[in-house]
Amino acid sequence: MKVSLIGLGKVGSAVAHAIVLKGLADELVLVSRRTEMARSEADDLNHAAGLEEHSVEVRAGGDVDTAGSDVILYCDAAQSKTSDVDRYCAARGNLERLRERIPILAAASPQAICVMVTNPVDVMTWFALQLSGFPQERVFGVGTLLDTARLRRLLSERWSVHASDVRAYVIGEHGEDQVASFSSASLGGEAMKPSDDLASLARQAAESAGKIYRTRGFTNYGIAGATMMILESIRNNRRRTAPVSMRINNYHGVSDVCLSLPAVIGRRGIERVLRPELNEAEQATFHRGAQRIRDVIQTLAPSLVAAS
Amino acid sequence: MKVSLIGLGKVGSAVAHAIVLKGLADELVLVSRRTEMARSEADDLNHAAGLEEHSVEVRAGGDVDTAGSDVILYCDAAQSKTSDVDRYCAARGNLERLRERIPILAAASPQAICVMVTNPVDVMTWFALQLSGFPQERVFGVGTLLDTARLRRLLSERWSVHASDVRAYVIGEHGEDQVASFSSASLGGEAMKPSDDLASLARQAAESAGKIYRTRGFTNYGIAGATMMILESIRNNRRRTAPVSMRINNYHGVSDVCLSLPAVIGRRGIERVLRPELNEAEQATFHRGAQRIRDVIQTLAPSLVAAS
Amino acid sequence: MKVSLIGLGKVGSAVAHAIVLKGLADELVLVSRRTEMARSEADDLNHAAGLEEHSVEVRAGGDVDTAGSDVILYCDAAQSKTSDVDRYCAARGNLERLRERIPILAAASPQAICVMVTNPVDVMTWFALQLSGFPQERVFGVGTLLDTARLRRLLSERWSVHASDVRAYVIGEHGEDQVASFSSASLGGEAMKPSDDLASLARQAAESAGKIYRTRGFTNYGIAGATMMILESIRNNRRRTAPVSMRINNYHGVSDVCLSLPAVIGRRGIERVLRPELNEAEQATFHRGAQRIRDVIQTLAPSLVAAS
Amino acid sequence: MKVSLIGLGKVGSAVAHAIVLKGLADELVLVSRRTEMARSEADDLNHAAGLEEHSVEVRAGGDVDTAGSDVILYCDAAQSKTSDVDRYCAARGNLERLRERIPILAAASPQAICVMVTNPVDVMTWFALQLSGFPQERVFGVGTLLDTARLRRLLSERWSVHASDVRAYVIGEHGEDQVASFSSASLGGEAMKPSDDLASLARQAAESAGKIYRTRGFTNYGIAGATMMILESIRNNRRRTAPVSMRINNYHGVSDVCLSLPAVIGRRGIERVLRPELNEAEQATFHRGAQRIRDVIQTLAPSLVAAS
Repeated sequence: MKVSLIGLGKVGSAVAHAIVLKGLADELVLVSRRTEMARSEADDLNHAAGLEEHSVEVRAGGDVDTAGSDVILYCDAAQSKTSDVDRYCAARGNLERLRERIPILAAASPQAICVMVTNPVDVMTWFALQLSGFPQERVFGVGTLLDTARLRRLLSERWSVHASDVRAYVIGEHGEDQVASFSSASLGGEAMKPSDDLASLARQAAESAGKIYRTRGFTNYGIAGATMMILESIRNNRRRTAPVSMRINNYHGVSDVCLSLPAVIGRRGIERVLRPELNEAEQATFHRGAQRIRDVIQTLAPSLVAAS
Repeated sequence: MKVSLIGLGKVGSAVAHAIVLKGLADELVLVSRRTEMARSEADDLNHAAGLEEHSVEVRAGGDVDTAGSDVILYCDAAQSKTSDVDRYCAARGNLERLRERIPILAAASPQAICVMVTNPVDVMTWFALQLSGFPQERVFGVGTLLDTARLRRLLSERWSVHASDVRAYVIGEHGEDQVASFSSASLGGEAMKPSDDLASLARQAAESAGKIYRTRGFTNYGIAGATMMILESIRNNRRRTAPVSMRINNYHGVSDVCLSLPAVIGRRGIERVLRPELNEAEQATFHRGAQRIRDVIQTLAPSLVAAS
Repeated sequence: MKVSLIGLGKVGSAVAHAIVLKGLADELVLVSRRTEMARSEADDLNHAAGLEEHSVEVRAGGDVDTAGSDVILYCDAAQSKTSDVDRYCAARGNLERLRERIPILAAASPQAICVMVTNPVDVMTWFALQLSGFPQERVFGVGTLLDTARLRRLLSERWSVHASDVRAYVIGEHGEDQVASFSSASLGGEAMKPSDDLASLARQAAESAGKIYRTRGFTNYGIAGATMMILESIRNNRRRTAPVSMRINNYHGVSDVCLSLPAVIGRRGIERVLRPELNEAEQATFHRGAQRIRDVIQTLAPSLVAAS
Repeated sequence: MKVSLIGLGKVGSAVAHAIVLKGLADELVLVSRRTEMARSEADDLNHAAGLEEHSVEVRAGGDVDTAGSDVILYCDAAQSKTSDVDRYCAARGNLERLRERIPILAAASPQAICVMVTNPVDVMTWFALQLSGFPQERVFGVGTLLDTARLRRLLSERWSVHASDVRAYVIGEHGEDQVASFSSASLGGEAMKPSDDLASLARQAAESAGKIYRTRGFTNYGIAGATMMILESIRNNRRRTAPVSMRINNYHGVSDVCLSLPAVIGRRGIERVLRPELNEAEQATFHRGAQRIRDVIQTLAPSLVAAS
């Protein structure tokens, strides 16, 4: 499997390292404007690869070298600033780069699955879908998978149980209005009744990225882990369920905006979308998130459409 | 970790092979009355172990060589006959051997976790608990974990999704009255509503062992797989949830009989018991299973008590 | 990757179990004359597969169902008898079955790699090569890989070092005249000088199969492990070196007989043959093995040629 | 297993990420002067850990929190400058920090194995051994394991064979005078005769770190990979051979300086030292490396001794 990784910032680098350690590609192309840097990073990663049982071949390249990719991991971002108040501040800069690159990448790899990692991921996914012309099962974003992992980790510690047995999905916006859908969650067959305690853990999970961001100026390990879970499910056709950001078609009245729902991920991308029941409070939050993303898209779309 | 495997029939041998391939013990003691055979089997397994990255040391031994085991996997069974109509026919013979061996094994490894693999597993677990004097979190049986795996496999094929994302537990009796608890089951956050279709798949899963048994005279791969899942969760303190046969304490009115409920399995054995909601039909089936096991225990207990 | 397993005796069954536990096929076809039995074995294996992270699809089938296989694992054998004095007694019966099946299998999967597991493996490999018409890099036998593993295990225990760091290859005949090529062996860069002590360990390794055979009537775990190492190297294009039985081309004066030499195994089969130096004693043993195999082939070939 | 990681620069962070992805600790303590940063890094790593099958508990702490560690990974370094001409420029700064910390760390974890990652590794290892008072099998440095991996990778590509089957060790100084000991190297049992071609590949391997360093200002993935190999061999008592920097006792006339030789690494640290034969040219290079390290130690020792 050929994987192309677009962007070698903190996130892209952590993703590349994880791919090499997990052997999740046969060929990995690192695409960055800083070509000398990318070449050195590829060399260093190849040294690491030589110590593994499996072996990923890493090389640096330009957009043309991505031709024939099976998976494109889009991690490219304009420099973020710690003064940015939320994920949407970065949108405009990231979007300009997206507008240039996606058409080139999509033309070079017309059969690829395109996984959006860059924030604001729901917005980026929506535009990547428009700009690529790809069918919607092949363009999706890491979305609330990472929020889900954070929440499951907290619940797993609280209850001393393996995180994969905590069946709670965070869905909706990858942002403030994410929905911890406790009304349909379970642990070992026991229902989890929504409660103040659960709500407080969900808030803690949702706020943890911001806390890290304010200290380090970025987060990268968790997001790399979420990307690996998706990549592994594609590469080995695992058909694991994971909430990912995708175009929503009539879920609780929401359509034509990108938000996260649990989906089955396999060799062809999104193979099935799950539609958990939501209680009223959860629906309201979901709708608020949808509205926010729709607003951001509206604001940014004209320039995009004009330019493309 | 030292693991002792009691009994080297078809099941015990498949379990030993799986332990070596998965590296789930540091030291594996094979206990069988046919000592020459056990020694040869250990040699052959050691040759396999030499080709693995991890390395299990396998040796044959008697009951005394199990001293200081962390886990005892009890697979010993009297010769089964294809004429046996169900799992309970084998009970008397298996129980006689159990009565002799468990006190010796328990004395040699007073801190061990004892996992019962031999059928009728619910009955065997109950007597092993009595005879060992161990606390109940350290004596449990593979139970309906295997039934659960069979059902999840069918559902996973039906819905093209990874089996671990199908959150349906089979609980209760490891036998005819097993309960596929669909009323609390989910897939990717979607509830699974009990239906004729689901019921028919559950029946198919429940009958699959019998079908294999009538042709081969035994089943061993599936049960070895279920045993590995438990062993892995103990060895690496994974705290995975799995339905295992254990003494029930007041679940839907049932107490003091061994049946399967989902449990969290870790380094200390059963670390937590989950109590899924059941609808009326499910409760009725659960109660029927409890009654059957209670009857078998009653019938067999006097001889056991008299002799021990 | 589609793998077809021909023959479901003790060896074939252990190989099938190992493939499921290690996830070394996407599709596994079990071919046996006892079709009901094969179907039940497939069901049981599928239950085990449902508990694994990866997922192998197992099914029973006839020769036609092997069509389009990437790898054929040939484990079919006539019933062996404990009265057989060595591996060559079984040759005639096994060969008759080979003569019937290989042309059918080869026609159904013209691009397959054919790995011979059945003994006498050097003889079987030679005939499979003739009968299939396949190029020699795609027909080879497990050969002395298992002897190598046994020897490395003994040396690994003697020196308390991981078996994969013991770089000693057993080559030549998979039988009495196997060659433990100590003159070119090393441990962590230290040369291993041939010595009486090493010779005695080599003898012990060579005799270990016979010892197991005399007690159990067969060996299966070790040989399944060796088969897995080859299969893994093919599936993941690992290019691991392993001594396998192949047609020898002018190595120390030997040609046109099948014996084991270290080879690089990858997606296309044998990708390179290594040619270790041998001292005089090692050469003499190698030649004796070559002569024995040549004699067996000569004796059996007329009937084969006449019939084919 | 409790692992403490000292220093969270580029190398320390890559090592921490790799530990989480590979599950090579039960508990991982990150020690850095920037405590807020370390805490955020631990949070982010825990999010990644929550997505893995195994689970490492990561937390930030000070030197006291390392108490009772099984392994100490020493990655702490003074800020390096791209103007530094080689690994020895950094020595003085790194050594000052070492002098303060090793006695505290050694007192807190008197049974730990101390693995030195910081450069100049041979010098750092020598001083860590003096300052800790630990026996020499429990203080060693990553040394030429990384150089070995780089060389094997090149040879593996040249010959299309898995890197682990290329049995060439780079030993001696982790620096200019490293020795690619081809005179005792082998591939699949074939000897590798020293040649101009091999020498040129060795030079290319030796220079690859410098090339990366000049572009990125650091290398981290390869060194993290080498550290993982050592940690894995300790944790699982693998007894893999790897060249590591250790106190040399009379090898080709060299004593009482730290350089790399192949060693067997297990639960107790270095369990055995291998002593490959060297030809004259190789010996000369080894001696030059020994002399350089001895000179650096001599220059730096007085201040160290005075202060400690």
